Amino acid sequence: MQVDSQHFDGTDKPEEPAPDTVLETAAERPLSGSDEIENPRSEVVRFGADAPLRLECGKDLAPYQIAYKTYGALNADRSNAILVCHALTGDQHVASPQPVTGKPGWWTTMVGPGRPVDTDRYFVICANILGGCMGSTGPASINPATGKPYGLDFPVITIGDMVDAQARLIDHLGIETLFSVIGGSMGGMQVLEWAARYKDRVFTAVPLAAAAWHSAQNIAFHEVGRQAVMADPEWAGGKYTEEARTPRRGLAVARMAAHITYLSEEALQRKFGRNLQNRGSRTFSFDADFQVESYLRHQGSTFVDRFDPNSYLYITRAMDYFDMAAENGGVLANAFRGTRTRFCVVSFTSDWLYPTRESKEIVQALNAVAANVSFVEIESDKGHDAFLLEEPELFATMRGFLGSAAAKRGLAPGKEA
Amino acid sequence: MQVDSQHFDGTDKPEEPAPDTVLETAAERPLSGSDEIENPRSEVVRFGADAPLRLECGKDLAPYQIAYKTYGALNADRSNAILVCHALTGDQHVASPQPVTGKPGWWTTMVGPGRPVDTDRYFVICANILGGCMGSTGPASINPATGKPYGLDFPVITIGDMVDAQARLIDHLGIETLFSVIGGSMGGMQVLEWAARYKDRVFTAVPLAAAAWHSAQNIAFHEVGRQAVMADPEWAGGKYTEEARTPRRGLAVARMAAHITYLSEEALQRKFGRNLQNRGSRTFSFDADFQVESYLRHQGSTFVDRFDPNSYLYITRAMDYFDMAAENGGVLANAFRGTRTRFCVVSFTSDWLYPTRESKEIVQALNAVAANVSFVEIESDKGHDAFLLEEPELFATMRGFLGSAAAKRGLAPGKEA
Repeated sequence: MQVDSQHFDGTDKPEEPAPDTVLETAAERPLSGSDEIENPRSEVVRFGADAPLRLECGKDLAPYQIAYKTYGALNADRSNAILVCHALTGDQHVASPQPVTGKPGWWTTMVGPGRPVDTDRYFVICANILGGCMGSTGPASINPATGKPYGLDFPVITIGDMVDAQARLIDHLGIETLFSVIGGSMGGMQVLEWAARYKDRVFTAVPLAAAAWHSAQNIAFHEVGRQAVMADPEWAGGKYTEEARTPRRGLAVARMAAHITYLSEEALQRKFGRNLQNRGSRTFSFDADFQVESYLRHQGSTFVDRFDPNSYLYITRAMDYFDMAAENGGVLANAFRGTRTRFCVVSFTSDWLYPTRESKEIVQALNAVAANVSFVEIESDKGHDAFLLEEPELFATMRGFLGSAAAKRGLAPGKEA
Repeated sequence: MQVDSQHFDGTDKPEEPAPDTVLETAAERPLSGSDEIENPRSEVVRFGADAPLRLECGKDLAPYQIAYKTYGALNADRSNAILVCHALTGDQHVASPQPVTGKPGWWTTMVGPGRPVDTDRYFVICANILGGCMGSTGPASINPATGKPYGLDFPVITIGDMVDAQARLIDHLGIETLFSVIGGSMGGMQVLEWAARYKDRVFTAVPLAAAAWHSAQNIAFHEVGRQAVMADPEWAGGKYTEEARTPRRGLAVARMAAHITYLSEEALQRKFGRNLQNRGSRTFSFDADFQVESYLRHQGSTFVDRFDPNSYLYITRAMDYFDMAAENGGVLANAFRGTRTRFCVVSFTSDWLYPTRESKEIVQALNAVAANVSFVEIESDKGHDAFLLEEPELFATMRGFLGSAAAKRGLAPGKEA
């Protein structure tokens, strides 16, 4: 099956680009994703100057907009809404084609009619995060004060800010309580913030392959990526759009480094090993002799067509700043005190970016406040990206957890029930 | 204690540079290490046009030179020589100050009077590898055909080529059989090649934290580093020296990415965690708020003062090409068939770059040919760089293994014996 994802193509067969993909230097070619920044091909809600968003940095952001997609129908009780939160480079197109790449939505295995997150039963909402580049306000958006893109004048945002902006969208949609908030990786961080900040508005919460804080190694990898972008002279201090430039190579290198962390060592070995790329022997040159080199270069090259370099800086920064324990007096459990939300925490055995140990810390914190929590560690050798891929145990877990919670919530059964 | 290393400062206290180290863009500043390229501050042996080195790529290299250091005295039997092989960014200054940085040699805990590799007992030789930039011929050397630095006209070399060049040095020194060949990481790869190519010339072999082939993940990280260097416009197609430029930022990013792989997640967490760098709270900016960011930037910035960017490309390429099984008909054991060398293979529990599993593959291959082999997995949370650091179990292992082999070899006992 064909699965597209925020990170990883998900097919067992590696993509095979022309053998010697070279990271492009051309600054002239505009980002093909740039059309989406102000007028995305999805729904948009705009909040005016009279409704600023107070950010954690202390600044107010106004005006701003949130781009989103919905799937399925909201029931009369408005009780069947599920918010899906996307990861670092994802977007609102969770279950419908991505307009820039034309590829299928990033989680079509999980979300859709008859899928575990069944759009015949649930009303699914997915919003581009604040700071993103697919229609929600971010550093590529026009700064109304200057008429030019914000660039580095955009305020540094946090996961909490992203969640607060999503809450405004949920208000706008007239939904008091979400049946579920679901997300993997950075999406899981948003799930945790939702459960902590809006305790009465989250019936169930499902953080997948996530953590309650970013480790030193997590920060280190992100810092490499940021330095790669900022080292590219085409970045131009963040003013590349104004100057009609693009730090293509820097962003591609950042993506290549990050991509390694999304896969397990075993998955890389199984998919690529030491296989040569369209050649019978080593060339004794710096061409992409190995498939894994070609694959990574291709990942880097294609990413820059759909993603804004400054957004990459801001979103990685938000993740690095994430530390729910520190936000709660050093005790993670305090974040969840008084919660009535039902949690389902999921980790994957080969995920070395957010290892099981970090999911267990979340579970321990929830147990400490006597929360209702299920925890599943799924055996997988696919690494962090397992949450996006074909993992039958994950699908069974999600069906079971959501189904039993839906019964408690009194939702009409799905077609299969 | 103060330990300098090829990778890692080795002190428990992180270095604390000025808080907001920014990767330098300045192309004007010459590499301070560039004086070493032709006339290093160490011994040098020069091989003329009449003594070319036949490389694996099929080309002949001539003339060429090998820069080296020796410690201790060769005994009358010429039977007490130990060759120490350095890792990716190391050099010949194993136990004496590095002339560019002024820092102590990179393995002073292991090599020196009374140390496990006891220079009162053994005659220790350490040579800068072929392709390096500390006096052995490499891409920064002057190409006699043009009078300019080789740059990308330097042939792509292999670990085997490095070893063949070292063998010429050992011939030059009048040594038939080395008492031991010892090295960690890429140094361990050279040890394996020595044992395979020069079976009668290696009495004992000690590969530490090494592997017999580079995995897909190993190649992937190196490819990110190469792309970071080559993405820097100051790299100028490898002709930066001629053009008085230097790809400082690209090389720094490459070093930052690689550096993460040298440390375990636990070591990074213990040393840095989420500690802020000289500030009380997050700055909501892209400054190096976190100690780990500052540390990595510092590692990147200082590396470029002592290392040639093209050397970095060539040496990582040699490592990626390394695959002793493939060289031997797909069967690693074939590499060692008929060996009489005594092996001591050492791995470290938290080394995720060359994990214990890969050392065990070496041991299994040696067992398959009934070789004399000891294997020790050392419990350490320091990651790959543990081999360079204060690890008492490593020192005890080395003393025990070398001491008993020395007795078999009939070497005079050390002072402590």
